[in-house]
Amino acid sequence: MKVGERSMKWYDIDVNAKKWTKEAGEIIRNSFQNELLIHTKSAPDDLVTNMDKEIEQFFIKKINETYPEHQILGEEGFGNEIEELKGTVWIIDPIDGTMNFVHQQRNFAISVAVYEDGVGKIGLIYDVVLDELYHSIKGNGAFLNEEKLPKLKSTKVAEAVIGMNVTWVTENKRINPTILAPLAKAVRGTRSYGSAALEMAYVATGRIDAYITLRLSPWDFAAGLIIVEELGGYVTTLKGEPLNLLAQNSVFVSKPGLHEEIMNDYLYKYKG
Amino acid sequence: MKVGERSMKWYDIDVNAKKWTKEAGEIIRNSFQNELLIHTKSAPDDLVTNMDKEIEQFFIKKINETYPEHQILGEEGFGNEIEELKGTVWIIDPIDGTMNFVHQQRNFAISVAVYEDGVGKIGLIYDVVLDELYHSIKGNGAFLNEEKLPKLKSTKVAEAVIGMNVTWVTENKRINPTILAPLAKAVRGTRSYGSAALEMAYVATGRIDAYITLRLSPWDFAAGLIIVEELGGYVTTLKGEPLNLLAQNSVFVSKPGLHEEIMNDYLYKYKG
Repeated sequence: MKVGERSMKWYDIDVNAKKWTKEAGEIIRNSFQNELLIHTKSAPDDLVTNMDKEIEQFFIKKINETYPEHQILGEEGFGNEIEELKGTVWIIDPIDGTMNFVHQQRNFAISVAVYEDGVGKIGLIYDVVLDELYHSIKGNGAFLNEEKLPKLKSTKVAEAVIGMNVTWVTENKRINPTILAPLAKAVRGTRSYGSAALEMAYVATGRIDAYITLRLSPWDFAAGLIIVEELGGYVTTLKGEPLNLLAQNSVFVSKPGLHEEIMNDYLYKYKG
Repeated sequence: MKVGERSMKWYDIDVNAKKWTKEAGEIIRNSFQNELLIHTKSAPDDLVTNMDKEIEQFFIKKINETYPEHQILGEEGFGNEIEELKGTVWIIDPIDGTMNFVHQQRNFAISVAVYEDGVGKIGLIYDVVLDELYHSIKGNGAFLNEEKLPKLKSTKVAEAVIGMNVTWVTENKRINPTILAPLAKAVRGTRSYGSAALEMAYVATGRIDAYITLRLSPWDFAAGLIIVEELGGYVTTLKGEPLNLLAQNSVFVSKPGLHEEIMNDYLYKYKG
């Protein structure tokens, strides 16, 4: 393909991805009157609803009809079994923040990303209830609805508000709680919203300055990674390494400057 | 006054309280284009802006003009010096969640309460950005905008989502972190939003099941207390005692059932 054809390809995919995401949001909003069927998966706090499944299948049907050569990696497992990121791959979380969806009917998002040969091309995070669509095509800036988001500016720990859950500063399986506790004390404040995709969108808009968590799957961060990196933010593991899009990762999302400061002064102790 | 006159009195105050709160919200929304003047108060994380002050003075002017016999207790200190809760007292936080106001331009609220001889009569919490007004006149139910909120149902720790900041499970001046850490582990999830008034409104609507924090001033909880109690929820200190409306308090807001379970199984260790 020539350059013009290539950018047309991504424009076309972006238009469809946005259209389907908005339609999926409409299905979810209309579901609020109905009773949810809620199941727990691996653990009592790992919820899934009929709506997670329905929305994933909605996307798969649309993608398969329109782009039969694309692969799909989805949280609920109705997509393809993917062992390497060759060709065009959609990475989808139909409802990121299912616990919020169940308990709050707000503060959850649809996360849709499109990668080509492992490189992020399109990222969409849709806050369904607020009708706020965070989106980016790589190299073309990032937007909240129609509004272009400014590049992220550097900030310091002492003036930062960071997303961090109590889990990671209390006894847990993944990190020594004494690593992040001093950071929690040093920052201006901490927040926890219960949706990785929205917390990455919050970093993208500067509402929080960083977000740290110890275990995310690719569908939780695939779209946020594209959006945050497009704005000059950093998305790495807690060891500062690139994320693996085919595995679970620790995730550290941050404004520039702050990323280096937190790596050097706090996370250097984390050995994974 | 006769009974009819008394209820007319509260109806009249409620109408004005709502009107002024909405007007104050409009002033705040219109301020988003302007540059904020931000100062720190007692500590680097204790922010105040020109808008906090302007909104408090807006309320004081309105109340003094309309109800010259009422007293006012406000966060920014422009009200009266109050040593006892005699007569009719307005308790006002012009912007609850100032850090969110500064960093996010969302997730903050105006909190307005009216007490008579220490008894809560009217509570208003206004999420300015979402235009969501949580309100109650004691004995007449609680509402989110026009929608009547259902009474709070009992729930269990294992199925609860609670509002709790990392501060209280790491080294801090107010509580031994080992008291709340096991609770954080036992619940389904924790959240932290950075506005006490909104977190109490979240308990009122069932979006979270409880909210625990170690130091709030009367203006942070005065409105939330009226709304949550009206719905059958509990608002106490972490020792299970009634809140003191003229002092700082630890605060434990909860659905029924859950309040008893958390008191008996976790907070019994807290000696204050």
